Amino acid sequence: MSIEFSPSLPFRVSQVKQWDIEADVLIVGFGAAGACAAIEASRAGASVVLFEAASGNGGTSALSGGEIYLGGNGGTPAQRAAGFTDETGDLFRYLMMAGGPDADEAKARLYAEESLSHYEWLVAQGVPYKNTFVPGKLVEPATDDCLIWSGSEQAWPFSEQAKPCPRGHTPQWTGWGGGRLLMDILAARVEELKVDVRYDSRVLALVADDANRVHGLVVRSDGVTRFARARNGVILCAGGFVMNRDMVRKHAPHLMRSDDPIGTPGDDGTGIRLGMSVGGAAIHMNEAFSSLPFYAPESLVKGIIVNERGQRFINEDAYHGRIGHHILQQLGDRIYLLVDSETYEPPIELLRVGIAAAGDTWEEVEQDLGMTAGTLTHTVETYNHHAAQGQDPLFHKAAAWLKPLTTGPFVALDCRIDYAFYPHFTLGGLDTLPNGQVLTDQREPVPGLYAAGRTACGLPRWGGGYSSGMSLADATFFGRQAGKHAATPGA
Amino acid sequence: MSIEFSPSLPFRVSQVKQWDIEADVLIVGFGAAGACAAIEASRAGASVVLFEAASGNGGTSALSGGEIYLGGNGGTPAQRAAGFTDETGDLFRYLMMAGGPDADEAKARLYAEESLSHYEWLVAQGVPYKNTFVPGKLVEPATDDCLIWSGSEQAWPFSEQAKPCPRGHTPQWTGWGGGRLLMDILAARVEELKVDVRYDSRVLALVADDANRVHGLVVRSDGVTRFARARNGVILCAGGFVMNRDMVRKHAPHLMRSDDPIGTPGDDGTGIRLGMSVGGAAIHMNEAFSSLPFYAPESLVKGIIVNERGQRFINEDAYHGRIGHHILQQLGDRIYLLVDSETYEPPIELLRVGIAAAGDTWEEVEQDLGMTAGTLTHTVETYNHHAAQGQDPLFHKAAAWLKPLTTGPFVALDCRIDYAFYPHFTLGGLDTLPNGQVLTDQREPVPGLYAAGRTACGLPRWGGGYSSGMSLADATFFGRQAGKHAATPGA
Repeated sequence: MSIEFSPSLPFRVSQVKQWDIEADVLIVGFGAAGACAAIEASRAGASVVLFEAASGNGGTSALSGGEIYLGGNGGTPAQRAAGFTDETGDLFRYLMMAGGPDADEAKARLYAEESLSHYEWLVAQGVPYKNTFVPGKLVEPATDDCLIWSGSEQAWPFSEQAKPCPRGHTPQWTGWGGGRLLMDILAARVEELKVDVRYDSRVLALVADDANRVHGLVVRSDGVTRFARARNGVILCAGGFVMNRDMVRKHAPHLMRSDDPIGTPGDDGTGIRLGMSVGGAAIHMNEAFSSLPFYAPESLVKGIIVNERGQRFINEDAYHGRIGHHILQQLGDRIYLLVDSETYEPPIELLRVGIAAAGDTWEEVEQDLGMTAGTLTHTVETYNHHAAQGQDPLFHKAAAWLKPLTTGPFVALDCRIDYAFYPHFTLGGLDTLPNGQVLTDQREPVPGLYAAGRTACGLPRWGGGYSSGMSLADATFFGRQAGKHAATPGA
Repeated sequence: MSIEFSPSLPFRVSQVKQWDIEADVLIVGFGAAGACAAIEASRAGASVVLFEAASGNGGTSALSGGEIYLGGNGGTPAQRAAGFTDETGDLFRYLMMAGGPDADEAKARLYAEESLSHYEWLVAQGVPYKNTFVPGKLVEPATDDCLIWSGSEQAWPFSEQAKPCPRGHTPQWTGWGGGRLLMDILAARVEELKVDVRYDSRVLALVADDANRVHGLVVRSDGVTRFARARNGVILCAGGFVMNRDMVRKHAPHLMRSDDPIGTPGDDGTGIRLGMSVGGAAIHMNEAFSSLPFYAPESLVKGIIVNERGQRFINEDAYHGRIGHHILQQLGDRIYLLVDSETYEPPIELLRVGIAAAGDTWEEVEQDLGMTAGTLTHTVETYNHHAAQGQDPLFHKAAAWLKPLTTGPFVALDCRIDYAFYPHFTLGGLDTLPNGQVLTDQREPVPGLYAAGRTACGLPRWGGGYSSGMSLADATFFGRQAGKHAATPGA
């Protein structure tokens, strides 16, 4: 058979001569979203086949810190142990702000209401949480501790509309990389439930009828092309498209300013393309997490970030992804983090941030950087003047991070966009209902098709509001919803 | 027959019982792109049916100024009469910069090479040009003159890489609104060529086979649904999607900051949806022309534009659409245009820009605006200091527009995003080849399908580089290419 298949062209069900595989639910991709979908579909009594293009499970979830954004309903054990009460309304308002100008209210509401029970579900699967809190500003705990401030909760303008609470929950795992632990645990559950997992299995196309109802998929493994029938539905959990640089160029070309995509080779947009091939609408395709993870050392948060004209443009205590989002909007590649000798600490090596200039006065630094006289110095003077009073009238950085930068020598750290570490991944994807159903551009469900994780456009959909743990929160929680609904679509 | 049709779902050719209409080429939309496609297809010997949803021709092209971006090959008669020599290489480099981070090099090259002959073609159709030049900064000539500076040619950074030349060509028509004249002329040609034009004809869906090859379309008029066969191809020239606010929210939500979409009700995204229904890739869907057309009076260009923190962020002599693009990226809705008594002239009423504050000193203005002391004043002082030397080291505004703002009283004009006039239209659309063929996400042509005008993502595809006349240049020129290729697809 020499048919050419494409993720962008559904194979017509009328052309299928025989189904080689049959199940109630077919899942594409064995990252966190796919695992959770498989667990819930299987627990609901559905037969499930899970296809993974790679030779092992994990996807990009396994490369992550394993952090999940959780809270509400008074708080998780870790939140409560640390003395925080997290109201559902505050979580909801934060999620709405984080979602940006087209936040998905239905998803934000459902997640806010059920986040605590989602935490309990994760614990029931075996995910260990130490219920300890690490205060301060950091990307991930270096220890096996649990709870951190992982977003912009304490930062303007978020802090004004939603009572701040730390919500980043990291599994008990020493050091970065708890995502692998999380995936091992979820994968063990998938195995326990006897889900039929097929590795090295690349999905080539969906199988659909003329009305774009999805009936199954075409998958290739061991050199053989097989037709798999989904009695209830196909769930696409195949990641985003950050590794498909052509696709990035066509939808989010500003990301090409950086050479640090985060993902596996599987994040090539296939999941999104499959969904679009049957009329699924891909939305917010220009949005991304794009970060300069410059803390810890948290002392650097007391510095100020300026563009090549010496202007500040964002409160530096915002989440590093929000800062990165604004950095990529600046004219010019030169970005500096300014600190004095009291606030300076060497950035982590990963960041590729060296010292661009140093001097005994800010005038010297300004000169060394070749900036127009009076620009950077005025920015620093204005900042210092108000910081001395515990204020930042221009960007509303919180008082805790305000310290006049007055103790020389002074340093400008070189965060240029074309050299420093700006990790990024895409947030655009298929529009879905909270139950995971993929929607057309008229927001009507595509029968038989679901999506979750970064194949979907979920809770996180705006670079200016992303917070650590949101992508896994979205992938695990809405992966579960998709699995449940696909198992009993009529329910 | 009670079949439900959708622009997002192709009707299967195998289900067509009879063709009610047949032609070599079917064109959807009678704006400039559709008219030019019809003219060329018809001249090449093809039979053409042109469907227009409205009761008359013109589309959004007829609402425009009729300005077309033209030049290269030494220059048009108007350019040469005014003493400008416009080299093809300069036009090409300008188009590449204007196209932004994913400029379409093939289209830019073809257009640069053939722009002068396109001018001659327009003249041959009967479009009158007075071949006179109006210097200075303006949106459209108020007179019946022809040539204006219609982009950022003389502004940084464009002026550094492409020798500046004015390229906005307006038909001989007194006052704004030359687009109606342009359309009347093109429509007369369409009529002369006996193209079969069907008004009040709404295209409901494309007709395609299982491989997404396009065979025709389904159209509704006079209460009757008809099947129209395209022996060679369908050309989608149905405008953009700015009037579909749901679609805008899902793809370009920053535009929702303004309530001034430019278009006809037809700019509802139907054309793009039709193309996507058969696998056409829609790209750069977040990009838009979004402008604050604050000049003329050109004296205002000598003012400076600041955000609500009193910071400048762009050279004010850039094209108003480039400035608007950057305005919509600012944090906060408050935007001010600062002028002194020598540079002040009342903005046009259309702009909805009043005086936010005035004072005998910039300190007073700063205070009146409730800005942090020393911010706006420092911005003005820095600007004035360098302007006095004919320099703008921060934003590289050209010397001609640099004048210290030192003669009181001083005025801050209120350009707030949520109130002032920010006209906008979408630039994202179907990816196409220079010959108009619609491309899949793998950049393979969708057989039998073409697009032009704002249904396609053409030369203009980046808000930061748009220049007046580019959309009509793209629509007319690439509409022609689509018509020619569809007439003789094998040629």
